[in-house]
Amino acid sequence: MNEHKQYTIAVIPGDGIGKEVTPWAQQALEKAAADVAAFNYVPFDLGAERYLRDGEILPDEDLEAIKKTDAILLGAVGDPRVKAGVLERGLLLKLRFALDQYVNLRPSKLYQGVTSPLAEPGDIDFVVVREGTEGLYCGAGGAIRKGTEHEVATEVSINTAYGVERVVRYAFELAMKRRKHVTLVHKKNVLVNAGDMWQRIVDKVGEEYPEVTHDYNHIDAATIYLVNDPQRFDVILTDNLFGDILTDEAGAVVGGVGYSASGCINAIDEYPSMFEPIHGSAPDIAGKGIANPTAAILSAAMLLRHLGFDDAAARIDAAVEADIAELGSTARSTDEVGRDILARI
Amino acid sequence: MNEHKQYTIAVIPGDGIGKEVTPWAQQALEKAAADVAAFNYVPFDLGAERYLRDGEILPDEDLEAIKKTDAILLGAVGDPRVKAGVLERGLLLKLRFALDQYVNLRPSKLYQGVTSPLAEPGDIDFVVVREGTEGLYCGAGGAIRKGTEHEVATEVSINTAYGVERVVRYAFELAMKRRKHVTLVHKKNVLVNAGDMWQRIVDKVGEEYPEVTHDYNHIDAATIYLVNDPQRFDVILTDNLFGDILTDEAGAVVGGVGYSASGCINAIDEYPSMFEPIHGSAPDIAGKGIANPTAAILSAAMLLRHLGFDDAAARIDAAVEADIAELGSTARSTDEVGRDILARI
Ligand SMILES: CC(C)[C@H](C(=O)O)[C@@H](O)C(=O)O
Ligand SMILES: CC(C)[C@H](C(=O)O)[C@@H](O)C(=O)O
Repeated sequence: MNEHKQYTIAVIPGDGIGKEVTPWAQQALEKAAADVAAFNYVPFDLGAERYLRDGEILPDEDLEAIKKTDAILLGAVGDPRVKAGVLERGLLLKLRFALDQYVNLRPSKLYQGVTSPLAEPGDIDFVVVREGTEGLYCGAGGAIRKGTEHEVATEVSINTAYGVERVVRYAFELAMKRRKHVTLVHKKNVLVNAGDMWQRIVDKVGEEYPEVTHDYNHIDAATIYLVNDPQRFDVILTDNLFGDILTDEAGAVVGGVGYSASGCINAIDEYPSMFEPIHGSAPDIAGKGIANPTAAILSAAMLLRHLGFDDAAARIDAAVEADIAELGSTARSTDEVGRDILARI
Repeated sequence: MNEHKQYTIAVIPGDGIGKEVTPWAQQALEKAAADVAAFNYVPFDLGAERYLRDGEILPDEDLEAIKKTDAILLGAVGDPRVKAGVLERGLLLKLRFALDQYVNLRPSKLYQGVTSPLAEPGDIDFVVVREGTEGLYCGAGGAIRKGTEHEVATEVSINTAYGVERVVRYAFELAMKRRKHVTLVHKKNVLVNAGDMWQRIVDKVGEEYPEVTHDYNHIDAATIYLVNDPQRFDVILTDNLFGDILTDEAGAVVGGVGYSASGCINAIDEYPSMFEPIHGSAPDIAGKGIANPTAAILSAAMLLRHLGFDDAAARIDAAVEADIAELGSTARSTDEVGRDILARI
């Protein structure tokens, strides 16, 4: 059906190790889908270097061009030379918001061959469904009397029934294809307005999915369970900030964010979805050629699955699994890992 | 100097296991300080039962009476029969705010004899200094069109230079007595208003403490380090919500929140400070007599230290350490652990 369909992929390597791992994601995509799809890559020079060079973060014409693509491969964004927030809010979050990527999908799986920092990790395999377009990430807030002893700074979390319900539905649909359990994570004992709304919507949508069980954890309790009982989770459903926090902790628990990919998904395909490793630009190891490209390669698999190429995606996943099982504990350069995984696809 | 000074201690056992562990905290206090101080205990019937009985959460006369005490011993608050947020916001947070307990002090230490869920925990010994009277906890926010598809719910984080600076100073003072390192944890790449203010105030106050080094972690990165490199931390300084999250994760990492106590401190002694285990009311194990009273007993030590009885506090700490080293892995009832620790004080 999809045989040799043409797709345009926006490629945004970004900063630091983003530039080192993204080429491997692109090669994996290319090889895995060679006999079913043809990709046309459009590189975008966005990130710290562009910003430092000409002050541009995400020019309108770039955003418009990106909107016309079928999907986006992103590396990582952030650079110590640029004040915190400028690139994150101006580029990464702007893309997530402008492209209405309301599902931030982040699978966590402990691969055979990876050493978890946990003594008894057991079988870890869950997915975090993080809301991507609301909450504390919407940039509402401000400061008065800045720099004085009377400064007041605010941050506003905005949550809508519209925005919550669509991501809740996505989580229940996903649970139907998995172990049929959804855990809502919030802090409804303190954030009573937003938390109450999330819970009501989960209860309501949950009624439409009688086969799916659902429960609730406070964010603080969830951070405990991730460490001492991660097997309990199947689908974790949560807001933008809590999802950010939980997925990094989850990445650590499965042996490092080097094995965790993520999709920023516009599930109604009105705009392209974006696929990225969950790790950052890692300025401390950038330029050394030692960043692990596995998460970036896994994000290529997520991209393929999103476009409907399940078999091609599965080929990448299998190659990664086999690579980690055999060589996961060997110290290898970025290119060595890339080549090893590519050879197995 | 403090010989046999009289102190009035408000005792609020609260809900669930709070009622089971608080008597042991009280006994530990009594025994450890027997020859230096005399305590007069004023019990307060506050929590779910009181609320379900007469609808009262924290009557004004109780709050006024509590204000006149020298310190507060609290168990835990929360009950599944009461809607999330009612007791937490109406009682626990109301106390923290009304008594201006701006430092929420939460030490994390891996005791010899406790099994951490980490494979190689190393030497974990840090303190989280969590701001206690601002941020997302101030109850600002609301909802419109509740229950409809057009509902909008907000939560507002309010942060002031006044509120931040005083807790930052506390953290640097504390670091001077420890390993002289402060790590600010925030999410300044997204929460740019509040995060920027926190960082500026840390930089400014830091200049007054040239011996103390300080660095910064995003909250998401901090959750990773807690799992794969907790030894790096000495004093973690953070806001109300991030502190809530980090200290529960930290509790898990040191083998369970059963070993973690906390102080809600009004560091200028305008109002009484409050000492509590960081665990909750644990309805699932309440009434079974199996809750571990260690954290509650440790909170009694924090209370003593706050009142200036360092030696008495050290006696409790030593008794707990010895108990855990010898019997930490033995299954014991609440009363057995309580008696065992008491015997060593
Ligand atoms: C870089 C940052 C803005 C981003 C986020 O907070 O969402 C990152 O941590 C992530 O999780 O993708
Ligand atoms: C019960 C709850 C309101 C409280 C908090 O969030 O502060 C608790 O989790 C804590 O950490 O003391």
